[in-house]
Amino acid sequence: MKNYFSSDFKLGILGGGQLGRMLLAETQKLDIHTSILESNKNAPCAEICNRFVIGNLLDFDAVYNFGKTVDLLTIEIENVNLDALDQLEEEGLTIYPKPKDLRIIQSKARQKNFYIDHQIPTAAFSHYAYLEELKHSYENSIVDFPFVWKAARFGYDGTGVKIVRNFADLESLPNVECITEKLIPFKNELAVIVARNADGKVKTYPVVEMEFHPEANQVEYVICPARIDFKTAEKAKEIALKVVSDLDFVGLLAVEMFQTVDDKILVNEVAPRPHNSGHYSIEASYTNQFEQHIRSILNLPLGNTDSKVAGIMVNLVGEEGYSGDVIYENIEEILQIDGVTPHIYGKKETRPFRKMGHVTIVNSDMTKAREIAQKVKETIKVISK
Amino acid sequence: MKNYFSSDFKLGILGGGQLGRMLLAETQKLDIHTSILESNKNAPCAEICNRFVIGNLLDFDAVYNFGKTVDLLTIEIENVNLDALDQLEEEGLTIYPKPKDLRIIQSKARQKNFYIDHQIPTAAFSHYAYLEELKHSYENSIVDFPFVWKAARFGYDGTGVKIVRNFADLESLPNVECITEKLIPFKNELAVIVARNADGKVKTYPVVEMEFHPEANQVEYVICPARIDFKTAEKAKEIALKVVSDLDFVGLLAVEMFQTVDDKILVNEVAPRPHNSGHYSIEASYTNQFEQHIRSILNLPLGNTDSKVAGIMVNLVGEEGYSGDVIYENIEEILQIDGVTPHIYGKKETRPFRKMGHVTIVNSDMTKAREIAQKVKETIKVISK
Repeated sequence: MKNYFSSDFKLGILGGGQLGRMLLAETQKLDIHTSILESNKNAPCAEICNRFVIGNLLDFDAVYNFGKTVDLLTIEIENVNLDALDQLEEEGLTIYPKPKDLRIIQSKARQKNFYIDHQIPTAAFSHYAYLEELKHSYENSIVDFPFVWKAARFGYDGTGVKIVRNFADLESLPNVECITEKLIPFKNELAVIVARNADGKVKTYPVVEMEFHPEANQVEYVICPARIDFKTAEKAKEIALKVVSDLDFVGLLAVEMFQTVDDKILVNEVAPRPHNSGHYSIEASYTNQFEQHIRSILNLPLGNTDSKVAGIMVNLVGEEGYSGDVIYENIEEILQIDGVTPHIYGKKETRPFRKMGHVTIVNSDMTKAREIAQKVKETIKVISK
Repeated sequence: MKNYFSSDFKLGILGGGQLGRMLLAETQKLDIHTSILESNKNAPCAEICNRFVIGNLLDFDAVYNFGKTVDLLTIEIENVNLDALDQLEEEGLTIYPKPKDLRIIQSKARQKNFYIDHQIPTAAFSHYAYLEELKHSYENSIVDFPFVWKAARFGYDGTGVKIVRNFADLESLPNVECITEKLIPFKNELAVIVARNADGKVKTYPVVEMEFHPEANQVEYVICPARIDFKTAEKAKEIALKVVSDLDFVGLLAVEMFQTVDDKILVNEVAPRPHNSGHYSIEASYTNQFEQHIRSILNLPLGNTDSKVAGIMVNLVGEEGYSGDVIYENIEEILQIDGVTPHIYGKKETRPFRKMGHVTIVNSDMTKAREIAQKVKETIKVISK
């Protein structure tokens, strides 16, 4: 095994947002030297990594030159220049997740084709190069309202996803490459995080259940374990493992799924990195998802994914109507409650629906945890001065 | 309440060692801007705090000038220039723990006098300004072998503490101010960490049990909860609370105690900060000691000190016979075991008995945790290239 700890080994991370920041907590714990490439000089990772390099993640030269300074490269955001990664890989750099998998995942259309090619259950979809093509399809009664529209690229946290219910909705869509899906009635949104290292060793986290904010289309609660029956949980895990295996994936893959009203599991989309649906693991799991990501990309033994206690995560997003220097109103009230841990991402300015942090609630009793989560949600507000 | 989170509030910490590093994990989690004063430019906190200032902690000007740049000052090591702290406090700076308490704690002689003045049970002691005085005392049969010798100041991790069994031992002692204590036969070494905020709110962690390495006099295992009866645990907590209350302490106080063969509890010494005996809390407790330290000095509500699972900590100290660039031999073997988390402090060079890191073992079953701890201890070795 290579010596990663307090050594001259250099880990590179593309992206310096909150996921990078939580990864840094783990590289600091293990004393792994970490360099970060990021375009925003005030990003959450600035000031707290060993080396912070400013550069555009979509620029070939920025990514290539950064890659030449590290011993192993990973990502905390998938929208990066893949040509640079291909070139670096060809020149011998180890990159996890593999660029070939990032290429599939970066495009929602390629993702969907991959699922269909590999008989992984997913909602039927159509693919359009421009908005005009989609409109044409509507005018010819090939698609019908309501349907789900997704930008093929660069969506995150619910941006780039819309439910289109009428012609006005259709008219307001941006003119970009997109896919559409039938709107499928579902009981639950679920997610399974799977870790796989280069040796092919695999560990699966428990199935979590997600509740979305109806307007902002952002996750409101993530609940671990999901309150579903054993059979459904096993089915969800099995499908997540198939995705990981068919991609020959190395790293951490978060697989988001729907449980339909007739108990089918359909893959919605995947993220090739630590994910919002796994933040609960910092407080609840024996091995949190960020440490597990580090273990998997360095081909270390994977850690125990069991939970010590029930965990619920509440996202802290900017309140509507507030922009500017952030204030976490009533944070001292939630700190009074047992088992409540806020995570503040280090963004100095709030905006409506901007993801500013999260709060984890852990308790030995899930019912109690759920009650506290609601109280936390109703108490703390992300506003501005 | 003041706004500490993602704000222009500046927390200052005197000392940039491993305790500071683990505090930084918490200030990063809460996005509290943190400046560190430290003399060693390669210290564990270098590169990962918001502002790292090089300076001697015992130098008046270094501490005073640093203090003028922050809004609240705390410590991760108690050997700091107290005259500078007194001056800063007089000029209005909030400092926790209070300089007056640090003055008592810095000197083992003053600590012992404090216990005796406040009827806190402790072993009887004598106080000597120089080694000659102690020798004189021996020659006049006032002290007799064996006895415990402690340097009055600047001891840490067992340095500055010796069991003196014969004249050769006595001859080899350094010529410094010291105290001596009767060697008391004890069953257990225990510790209780108490947090108290400025509002006077108090929380007590469970009693932990410590096993020391026989030669290096460093802690080998810290076991939480201690395997002692309820009555002894309650007595230990009660005494720790009395120390905190009599000091009118604000911050985190670790109280080390002996359980004598006849079940008396005697206070050995205290540390006014996060402590080795509380490292297990990162993985095992609802609120770890580092977050609790931050909560207490900022007068935030204190967190739940209960444990989710049993926790055991093993110190990683440099093997005898190895000096130079560190290697953590067999670290991949311990990573294979469920519930095992290494913490590497970021010291690039090992030396015999140097504290390089620690490993936490958590398990729902204490007996199992203890077995794993032994295995960890026997497997991982801190050596050099």
